[in-house]
Amino acid sequence: MINKNKKNFLIILISPSGGGKTAIFKKILADNTEIKYSVSYTTRKARINEINGVDYNFVSEEKFIEMKQSGDFLESALVHGYWYGTSKSYVISILKNNHIIMDIDVQGAKQIMNSEIDQITIFILPPSREVWLERLKGRGTDSDEVIQVRLKTAESEIKEIRDFQYLIINDDLENAVDNIKTIIKAEENRIQRYKNIEIYYGG
Amino acid sequence: MINKNKKNFLIILISPSGGGKTAIFKKILADNTEIKYSVSYTTRKARINEINGVDYNFVSEEKFIEMKQSGDFLESALVHGYWYGTSKSYVISILKNNHIIMDIDVQGAKQIMNSEIDQITIFILPPSREVWLERLKGRGTDSDEVIQVRLKTAESEIKEIRDFQYLIINDDLENAVDNIKTIIKAEENRIQRYKNIEIYYGG
Repeated sequence: MINKNKKNFLIILISPSGGGKTAIFKKILADNTEIKYSVSYTTRKARINEINGVDYNFVSEEKFIEMKQSGDFLESALVHGYWYGTSKSYVISILKNNHIIMDIDVQGAKQIMNSEIDQITIFILPPSREVWLERLKGRGTDSDEVIQVRLKTAESEIKEIRDFQYLIINDDLENAVDNIKTIIKAEENRIQRYKNIEIYYGG
Repeated sequence: MINKNKKNFLIILISPSGGGKTAIFKKILADNTEIKYSVSYTTRKARINEINGVDYNFVSEEKFIEMKQSGDFLESALVHGYWYGTSKSYVISILKNNHIIMDIDVQGAKQIMNSEIDQITIFILPPSREVWLERLKGRGTDSDEVIQVRLKTAESEIKEIRDFQYLIINDDLENAVDNIKTIIKAEENRIQRYKNIEIYYGG
């Protein structure tokens, strides 16, 4: 998929809680080894099966704050007392040779959309409101209170859907993945992503 | 390809003289019966093998001027003493049920891009400057003067290429057609082309 005469870009998958983007994300990465996963930075400790630089870039709080103050984070968020963020210099370094893909929530995506990184945004929705509500209630382990908060957040996120470029209805995993691959291939043909066209044709 | 829950759009194929868009255009239409050909209006007389309403909508100069004055033309041009133009009301009527595709020059495309019609623009280039120059000189029947004019026009058109959305390098017909189909499919997933998303998910 990667063409050396074209510029690579950041692929941002967004969905409200329960949208089902995680399975899609994993399948895209498994099918397209030339698309790289955007490894986040975090201040939380690595779990036993997590690998530094693969699952996350694990850094100290001091290091994270230093990166944040230097303006290196495309987006960052404090969750349950730990920082998470996407490094701009890291993303730029991957884009030299590959597309890079990330899966993120609405607020994180909005932060990245304010940057100058060349990007496409794909919003993912479950096949219907009914399925979505089932998934939000889903795991059986959550309290009614937690479910209500999740529902309220998801409903406020859906109101911002028109700020994103593409929408995929996740009715079938294969179909959703095919649609995302199609979008990536089409976006590779955007005129601004070709290098040196005028040199070859301009005379 | 057509989905009743999504809005259809106008597909504009543009290339400089010698770009090779005609073959692509014919193949897209042959492969996709649900994409309709945009039938232009003209004041020239029908040739023996031309069918009114299929090849062109043949109208009198009075009728054409009347349509033009009423603002119905998305674009129009006077060529060798005859008018040619694309009717807005005609395009809108087709878009109710189908995508519509047209092949047009740079100046015509620019006129349409000033309208509110939902559209995508795809520029087509020959595989290299050398092939392109050969094609421009090509047919063997043209004078050096005609070839020089064509070359100058094509070179000035290429300078406007960045005003369009997509670029296809026509190195192989099948490949070029596949790329255009991919672009059309991706554009169907643009968020602004979905109807009633908020009704189904907004609660």
